[in-house]
Amino acid sequence: MAKPIIKVHGISLSTCTARVLLCLHEKGLQYQLVPIDVASGAHKRQPYLSLNPFGLVPAFEDGNVSLFESRAINRYLARKHEDKGTDLLLSKSSTESAIVETWMEVEAHHFNGPIFAINHQRIINPLYGLDPDEEIIKSELEKLENVLDIYEERLSKSEYLGGKSYTLADLNHIPFLVYFMKTPNATAITSRPHVNAWWNKISTRKATIEVEAGMKLHLANFDNEK
Amino acid sequence: MAKPIIKVHGISLSTCTARVLLCLHEKGLQYQLVPIDVASGAHKRQPYLSLNPFGLVPAFEDGNVSLFESRAINRYLARKHEDKGTDLLLSKSSTESAIVETWMEVEAHHFNGPIFAINHQRIINPLYGLDPDEEIIKSELEKLENVLDIYEERLSKSEYLGGKSYTLADLNHIPFLVYFMKTPNATAITSRPHVNAWWNKISTRKATIEVEAGMKLHLANFDNEK
Repeated sequence: MAKPIIKVHGISLSTCTARVLLCLHEKGLQYQLVPIDVASGAHKRQPYLSLNPFGLVPAFEDGNVSLFESRAINRYLARKHEDKGTDLLLSKSSTESAIVETWMEVEAHHFNGPIFAINHQRIINPLYGLDPDEEIIKSELEKLENVLDIYEERLSKSEYLGGKSYTLADLNHIPFLVYFMKTPNATAITSRPHVNAWWNKISTRKATIEVEAGMKLHLANFDNEK
Repeated sequence: MAKPIIKVHGISLSTCTARVLLCLHEKGLQYQLVPIDVASGAHKRQPYLSLNPFGLVPAFEDGNVSLFESRAINRYLARKHEDKGTDLLLSKSSTESAIVETWMEVEAHHFNGPIFAINHQRIINPLYGLDPDEEIIKSELEKLENVLDIYEERLSKSEYLGGKSYTLADLNHIPFLVYFMKTPNATAITSRPHVNAWWNKISTRKATIEVEAGMKLHLANFDNEK
C-alpha cells in the first residue's frame, strides 16, 4: 500500500500556506501542494469549503486526517513527527514546551494583528490600485514596535523566542516577516539588534530559503510601485 | 515539603483570567488567585511585568514554571494533568487532538476578534462614560454572525466544537460569551438552535457556574444603563 501523501491545498504566495510549508520542510516530509485558484474564488466554493469552512487557504490532508488553520496543522505535524527533523515543540519537557506555547500565543495574539494590517496596506492595497493608508500604518506600527521591544528584551536573554532552540514559536512568525522585510517599515526589525540577529538566523535556515522561493508577491508589487 | 501552590495573578472579572480559572475548575486543581490592582495600573509596573512582559492579566506560576497567555496556560494544565478531571485536549489520539487544536485556533483567530470588539463597545465604553459605537458593533456583529453560521453547521454534526466531548475548544469561548449573553446582541447565539444548545450545555457546567460567580461586571454596568 502506498504511503498516504500529505496534501496542502493552497498557494505558495499565501502567508498561511507558507507557514505550513515551513513546518513540512523543517521536518523533511514529502507533500503535494494542490493549487487553489483563489483568483476565481475557488476557495469560497465547494468542494473547497468542505476542506475549510472559512474559505481560507490552506487546507490540509494527511490520509484520512483533514485539518485547517495553519498553526493547528503545524502542531499536528510537529507532534506526529516529533523525532523527525527539527523538534519544533520541545514536547519531551512539559516546562520547555509550555514556554514554546506561550510565545506561540504571543505571535498569534500580539504580533499577527499589527503586521497583517501593515502588510495589507503596503502590499495588498496597491494590488487593488489603492494607496496605503498611512494613518493605519502609523497606528499599527506603534503596536508592532511595542511588541518588538518585548521581543528585544526576550531575545537578549534567550537565543530563540521559545527557548534555546528553534521552534514553532519562531517559525510561525516567518511568513509575514518575509513580506514585511521588503517594506520601508523593515527598520522596525533591523533597528533592534537582538531581533535583527534572530531574523538573520531564522530567515537563512534551509527550510526558510526553500519556502521563501515561492513567495514573490512583494517583488512584483514593489517593482510596480517604483 | 508542601506541594507547590498554583498561583493565578489576575482578577476574576477579567475574561482571560476566567479562561484559566475555568480550566483549573474542570481539572479540580487547587489554586490561589492573587489579586492585581489593575485600577492603579499595578499590571503595567514591576514586579508584575516580570511575570507578564505585556502587562496584561493573568500571569501564572506553578512551582518554578512561570507562564502567561491564557490559552498557553490552559494547554499546559490540560497536558500536565491529562488524567485528572475533564480530558481537555484528547491527547491520546493524534487525530482527535488535531481537531481540537483546529477549533481552538478558530476561537483565537475568528471568534475572539469580533466578540472582543462588541463587548468592548457594549460593556467597557459605558464604564468610561462613552456611548457604544453602533457602526463598529454592526460591522463586528456581521463578522461574528458569519463565524456562528459555521459553528451552527459544525454543531449540527458534532456535539462539541472539538469533537464528541467537551474540550478547550469549547472552554476557551466561555469568558467572552458570559458577558456577550448579557447584551442585546445575545440573539446571535439564541437564534441559532445548535449554537444555543451548545451554549446551554457549556454554560451550565459546574466549573462554568463556579467561575461565572466572579464575573459580575456586566450586571453593575447594565443596571447603570437602565
